[in-house]
Amino acid sequence: MTRIAIDAMGGDYAPYEVIAGAVWAAQDYGVGLELVGNQDRIEQVLEQISKEGFLSECGKAGRKRRVRVNVKSLDIKITHASEVIEMGEAPGQAIRKKKKSSIVLAVNSVATGSSDALVAAGSTGAAMAASLFGLGRIHGIDRPAIAVTLPTMKKPIVVIDAGANSNCTPEMLRQFAIMGQTFSKNVLGIENPRVGVLNIGEEAGKGNELAQHTYKLLEEEQDKFNFVGNIEGREIFLNLCDVVVCDGFVGNVALKITEGTSSMLFRMLKEQFKSDLLGMIIGLLAKPFMKRIYTKINYEEFGGALLLGIKGITVISHGRSKAYAIKNAVRVAKEAVVNGVNRQIAESVV
Amino acid sequence: MTRIAIDAMGGDYAPYEVIAGAVWAAQDYGVGLELVGNQDRIEQVLEQISKEGFLSECGKAGRKRRVRVNVKSLDIKITHASEVIEMGEAPGQAIRKKKKSSIVLAVNSVATGSSDALVAAGSTGAAMAASLFGLGRIHGIDRPAIAVTLPTMKKPIVVIDAGANSNCTPEMLRQFAIMGQTFSKNVLGIENPRVGVLNIGEEAGKGNELAQHTYKLLEEEQDKFNFVGNIEGREIFLNLCDVVVCDGFVGNVALKITEGTSSMLFRMLKEQFKSDLLGMIIGLLAKPFMKRIYTKINYEEFGGALLLGIKGITVISHGRSKAYAIKNAVRVAKEAVVNGVNRQIAESVV
Repeated sequence: MTRIAIDAMGGDYAPYEVIAGAVWAAQDYGVGLELVGNQDRIEQVLEQISKEGFLSECGKAGRKRRVRVNVKSLDIKITHASEVIEMGEAPGQAIRKKKKSSIVLAVNSVATGSSDALVAAGSTGAAMAASLFGLGRIHGIDRPAIAVTLPTMKKPIVVIDAGANSNCTPEMLRQFAIMGQTFSKNVLGIENPRVGVLNIGEEAGKGNELAQHTYKLLEEEQDKFNFVGNIEGREIFLNLCDVVVCDGFVGNVALKITEGTSSMLFRMLKEQFKSDLLGMIIGLLAKPFMKRIYTKINYEEFGGALLLGIKGITVISHGRSKAYAIKNAVRVAKEAVVNGVNRQIAESVV
Repeated sequence: MTRIAIDAMGGDYAPYEVIAGAVWAAQDYGVGLELVGNQDRIEQVLEQISKEGFLSECGKAGRKRRVRVNVKSLDIKITHASEVIEMGEAPGQAIRKKKKSSIVLAVNSVATGSSDALVAAGSTGAAMAASLFGLGRIHGIDRPAIAVTLPTMKKPIVVIDAGANSNCTPEMLRQFAIMGQTFSKNVLGIENPRVGVLNIGEEAGKGNELAQHTYKLLEEEQDKFNFVGNIEGREIFLNLCDVVVCDGFVGNVALKITEGTSSMLFRMLKEQFKSDLLGMIIGLLAKPFMKRIYTKINYEEFGGALLLGIKGITVISHGRSKAYAIKNAVRVAKEAVVNGVNRQIAESVV
């Protein structure tokens, strides 16, 4: 049985929502769990959920339902961790200093083979640093990167890096391109994925130094990349490419702006419908249609993003993840155990 | 009478749509024009519009109406320019080499007082370089920057820089903060505007080196800035601050992702409504509500963004501007002549 290690203390709604999502996934997807964190609190939460279940919005904002989980029937290991790495701490220092933190011990459990993959919703920097040092990086990859899939009108597009590395070099982005195209091909099933550089204009000379140099690097290796040039922010959603590379700062801003824009638009629409009685009726009728779109783009459905470039599987979840998002993150982790994308990256780098 | 110089050759739909938008604005807002570009082509377009008007979507995608303009009644000067700066050219070189290009001559007409402000939809880099050299920069400001206002649930937020400078220093971002808060106060009427740094986490140590150092600079000057710390991409739309500073690369990506996300969502909703007959009826009923939101967020309504930090008024329009967007850009230029934001920046920098 596949076992997923969970940093039970990481995330804005930890440990309650994280544990709730994990046991929910364990029940629905048939995986074992290793919950890493304060043992007393984990046991308390498990007991509470065992008794009364928990409320979840299930990705549908505003409508909660009670989820029942037969906790006793699940295969759950608890690993006590006496420390927690907080959001403000410098990741590198923190993982060296706090060797008994939940994230470091959760990575250890993957490193020793006790678990097969890790889900972490706490500090992204700490999860990356712990994975880098605990699992090691793939030969030929300097820095791991986060790959997220964004919904578009047609096929999903991979954005890499979505937040692991704030300061990048062109060579790092070239490696992101390799990882991104392996992910696109092997996980999303896209043949010969087209690679683009996120930029602020079409022409080769546009953008900052990083984008300009990355353009040159990718252009030189026509045999390695199906390179389609620069992609502007607006074009991401038009399926002009399958993989877009950028530094983790820009990628994270892009990702969160996408989230922010869509949730604002849905709220604006809702408010607009509430402006009069007729609007309220039309709004009610339109709701199921809007919900289908919302489900398509809601980050909670995606659950988490894979950290690519390490010798192991780490799924990074949104800090704001509630149970439903964590559940989906565990699904992503389970799928990654099966498709072994990091193994394939190791092969394609050689 | 206020006269607006127009780079008639700049933009994806120049000269036709640019001239159409300019004469439309001249008629509706009572301004004079100085159309700068190939004289023959300008005269041709004016004659055509004079005879048959032009078709415009008026910011409502898919529904065109014919706009009639009494061209002969307008105060239009034509200034012949024998050259055009193309999108791919390096801006600095291009404006030095092509002294008879439409953008250089249009800036000249503002510099000499022949016109009061400039609207440009061509290469942003060329418009900035030409304005910088032709009009001069405000003392205390190293680099001009583009300020855009993004719609949010409540008050609009100013994002600066939205694309003028791809490579920035912390000191440049500090100056953007000064310009942004002057704009927010004097143009948008927001008292004591809150300033934030666009970043990928809340804490002071987050983000790339630029964001970290800018944070420190702004924090040190509590008397000068109403500094509220880091703002994440998602939070831009939550009105946690009034001015958000970032380098022009990130700002431009952010702006275009916002556009891309909203236009994708509207298209997804439209498609969803088309899935069955009931949906089509509900979609028809919902249309006016959706249109109100669309109008609120459509970049064509905003028309153009002011280039701040120069001794004069340059409005940068979207490269994809059609007549309606250009018309609104001329309105922005006219308003800027009245409110004189760059004069106020000069005062607040001292």
